[in-house]
Amino acid sequence: MASEKRQKAIDLSHHLSDLSRARGVSPLKGLAKYFGRPGVISLAGGLPNPAYFPFNNIGADVLVPDSFSLNTTGQDESSLSWFWKFFGRAGKERTTSISIPKFSETTEQVSLAVALQYGGIGLRQLQAFLNEFVEKVYQPAYSDFSILVHTGNTDGWSRVMQTLINPGESFLTEEWTYTSALATTNPHGMHAVPIPMDKDGMSSTDLRSILAGWDEKARGCKRPHVMYTVPVGQNPCGYTMSSIRKKEIYNICVEYDIIIVEDDPYYFMQQEDYVPKSERSSQSTGKYVNEADWLASLSPSYLKFDYQGRVIRLDTFSKYIAPGSRLGWHTCSPLFAERLERQGETSTQTPCGFGQSLVTQLLTTWKYDGYIRWLHGIAVQYKNRRDFFIDTFGDEFHLVPSTSNIGFWKDRQVFDAYAKSKKCVMAEKGELGTKLFSFVPPSAGMFIWLKVHFENCPGANASGAERPEIQLWVKIAEAGVVISPGWFFAADEENPPTDETEGHFRISFSYADFETLRKAVKIIANVMKEFFRVSD
Amino acid sequence: MASEKRQKAIDLSHHLSDLSRARGVSPLKGLAKYFGRPGVISLAGGLPNPAYFPFNNIGADVLVPDSFSLNTTGQDESSLSWFWKFFGRAGKERTTSISIPKFSETTEQVSLAVALQYGGIGLRQLQAFLNEFVEKVYQPAYSDFSILVHTGNTDGWSRVMQTLINPGESFLTEEWTYTSALATTNPHGMHAVPIPMDKDGMSSTDLRSILAGWDEKARGCKRPHVMYTVPVGQNPCGYTMSSIRKKEIYNICVEYDIIIVEDDPYYFMQQEDYVPKSERSSQSTGKYVNEADWLASLSPSYLKFDYQGRVIRLDTFSKYIAPGSRLGWHTCSPLFAERLERQGETSTQTPCGFGQSLVTQLLTTWKYDGYIRWLHGIAVQYKNRRDFFIDTFGDEFHLVPSTSNIGFWKDRQVFDAYAKSKKCVMAEKGELGTKLFSFVPPSAGMFIWLKVHFENCPGANASGAERPEIQLWVKIAEAGVVISPGWFFAADEENPPTDETEGHFRISFSYADFETLRKAVKIIANVMKEFFRVSD
Repeated sequence: MASEKRQKAIDLSHHLSDLSRARGVSPLKGLAKYFGRPGVISLAGGLPNPAYFPFNNIGADVLVPDSFSLNTTGQDESSLSWFWKFFGRAGKERTTSISIPKFSETTEQVSLAVALQYGGIGLRQLQAFLNEFVEKVYQPAYSDFSILVHTGNTDGWSRVMQTLINPGESFLTEEWTYTSALATTNPHGMHAVPIPMDKDGMSSTDLRSILAGWDEKARGCKRPHVMYTVPVGQNPCGYTMSSIRKKEIYNICVEYDIIIVEDDPYYFMQQEDYVPKSERSSQSTGKYVNEADWLASLSPSYLKFDYQGRVIRLDTFSKYIAPGSRLGWHTCSPLFAERLERQGETSTQTPCGFGQSLVTQLLTTWKYDGYIRWLHGIAVQYKNRRDFFIDTFGDEFHLVPSTSNIGFWKDRQVFDAYAKSKKCVMAEKGELGTKLFSFVPPSAGMFIWLKVHFENCPGANASGAERPEIQLWVKIAEAGVVISPGWFFAADEENPPTDETEGHFRISFSYADFETLRKAVKIIANVMKEFFRVSD
Repeated sequence: MASEKRQKAIDLSHHLSDLSRARGVSPLKGLAKYFGRPGVISLAGGLPNPAYFPFNNIGADVLVPDSFSLNTTGQDESSLSWFWKFFGRAGKERTTSISIPKFSETTEQVSLAVALQYGGIGLRQLQAFLNEFVEKVYQPAYSDFSILVHTGNTDGWSRVMQTLINPGESFLTEEWTYTSALATTNPHGMHAVPIPMDKDGMSSTDLRSILAGWDEKARGCKRPHVMYTVPVGQNPCGYTMSSIRKKEIYNICVEYDIIIVEDDPYYFMQQEDYVPKSERSSQSTGKYVNEADWLASLSPSYLKFDYQGRVIRLDTFSKYIAPGSRLGWHTCSPLFAERLERQGETSTQTPCGFGQSLVTQLLTTWKYDGYIRWLHGIAVQYKNRRDFFIDTFGDEFHLVPSTSNIGFWKDRQVFDAYAKSKKCVMAEKGELGTKLFSFVPPSAGMFIWLKVHFENCPGANASGAERPEIQLWVKIAEAGVVISPGWFFAADEENPPTDETEGHFRISFSYADFETLRKAVKIIANVMKEFFRVSD
């Protein structure tokens, strides 16, 4: 297996965009070697003396790594935090104090004098932690990979698209994809080429046939050389790509010389299969008690197969520490890392030093093992949230394993949802009535993706009216619940991968407490039943 | 005076770039009104529950606002911070503790649950502080101005240039300008049109004549409609534009329909005139003891004259709190603010929540008056640094008030520097010998800008050799001092506003402690004398 050899990334510099080439080398050009030499007095930059930083130290009380249990019985541990707040029992949470002084005793220690100064590529201590993390968790197939901190995956993708894609060029992505990624590229005239999905996410068969049959004239642009993909907890559909499929896609990308941009915020939210409430045991810990086994159970990153250095992976702390940390990193070849660094120098520069130093101090206090334990705890929390959320749909609707093999859901665990009448008379008779929507329990991430069967809704497609998806969306919003309409996520908004009679919603189970989730599902159920004119 | 009326910004939407127009409205489009309504349950976004933020609180010990004296006798107060560190007497500094809990008791208080979440336009409390600050300090000429936080002026300018300038278009700027601003635009094919400077900074006469005589064919692009300017502590020259000149420039911009981008990081580092050491009194406080008088003495922002809303002002906390705060803000018309917000949504997003909440808590603890006192203290520190630095040049060279009225330095306080021989024989005889360089004491900012007289240097212009500026720069660097070579700052690098026999250096006095500054000037003096073959 080529992917198991540890190689050096090959030169893929022909992929750089005109903008990236025009950036030239470092702004310091030939004089760079004189900067930053030990013992040299630098009077070059406009750096304020750290005495003028009004912060003498910063600190925090941080949770211990095993704050969340590995218990998969569906308890809402997130609500405890609120409970402790309201009843003044915050001391019940186990915490550790961390602090960062303005000046440190040793160069090993993080100091504000460094963290709050202008600074190139981020804190050395963070860099070291991330190197260990990437090496152990993702195991890149070549050894000279680079890590470059950024201010979150939005910044990450923004830098990548400017570094690799010229205006007028297109890029490959899943037929349903992350809206914000499109909002980044569309205004630049870089358009998404949607690839159909099957049960394993992006279809390798469709990818190959689209590339092989690419007609430059008919398409109006040359064959894409960049792929943007969310392979784990695919946004919005919630799929997770298997290892086999990743290898297939990677090999096609080698064949057609494509750079893979792996946007992977949900990697540590991979969840075991959904087991209906009635079949789950009431007291159980997760499948993996040992962190190494848990990590080994996760679908590998594209990095593991990337013996050529054609993967740019985007990681973020937004989902595991906090979105407001505005901190993440690129893992990629040194060539791309250098260009991405230059790209960042004229926009975001280095991530915020307050955030960098606090997160770095947290991670170096927890250490690698502690952070993995924290991630595992968070993963179990999201599994519990997903299970609770689907259970709640089961309370409001008849959820029935599907027999219909809907399109790209073939061979997946699909549930069809039918209206539950007050007396459940029809159900008892085996008559389910109107099928309202279907879904696949997500295997990772924060969202459930519903396909709504407007073909069963009388009058929903009356000509002249708003599309039924929007009609129903507005009614749910007016009843007090805001969810995401499906059309947000069509890679090609003009030609969404769906027909007129269908609609989709993406619903997040990541934020609200369990009681609020239950209330929201009740509201959705009531509005839906009324919309479908299903009598109670 | 039109500028004294408080008007509403006029519609200048015809200035938006193609990229900005292509961004459309909000990503939420027509559904935006349903988001964020009170009482609504949102299951739309991928927001983690704040229970999963591992930070239970963050805090800091911050200096009190009057930590730096208003004493202008040139004491190096910045070194005390190091002193206290090394002698373990950190407790000698007067500090206040601030902290930010995960959940706050009232909505007035900053909380991590809000600050560390995804969030649109930054913390409400910071917004409120900045509104008060801009209103009181800059006094914009129209009342419906908007404030939008960004991650520092690099991000600020990056968003502006993408929002206003199309590739291939040009923009106006001072003939010497901030390198990084050019590094942002050049790769996009947006080129700087240099405007000559006189003693007040950008020349209004030259600006008008360049605009009036604009020849689209000869220039290869249409007349610029954007100006990038650093009017206070002009980078690199250190000039500060007078109120009268600003009005002249503003009126020309009204006439030619130009948007003014006022990049103003050094606003609160405006310094009184340099008085030679021998003439300064040894014990004196600054000219302004009252903060209101000090503020009133500062050159006004372009905002004060901006009755049409054609100014986009960039402010940053980098110089007054810390560069690593990566925090600043745009002040501009609501039209531009909305476009700049959209532009940021696909790159930096909101500034880091750790930084935002700590800076906000600092400012709301200090309050407006405290922050103004802090700024005044910092201003005095930089005045002391500048004075010390020039004094040190005076120790190493003969500094003589210039009689030569060099080019755009006409009517400024100019010093010529001559080599000081060991015995000072020539000087005593009134013979000064070789004039090495000249400079104008900066009236704001962190830098001194030297013009080096290579015409007096035998052999420096030998054909085939590197330009003398670089030859000397390398020798100084090899001797252990790194400064900035002048060619970095030429708005038009191909045609720098200088002749072959001249060279320039920008030297920063902002960072090093006083002893190091003295050591650096000694090194520079020795290398220069050797380079100019001036016998000791």
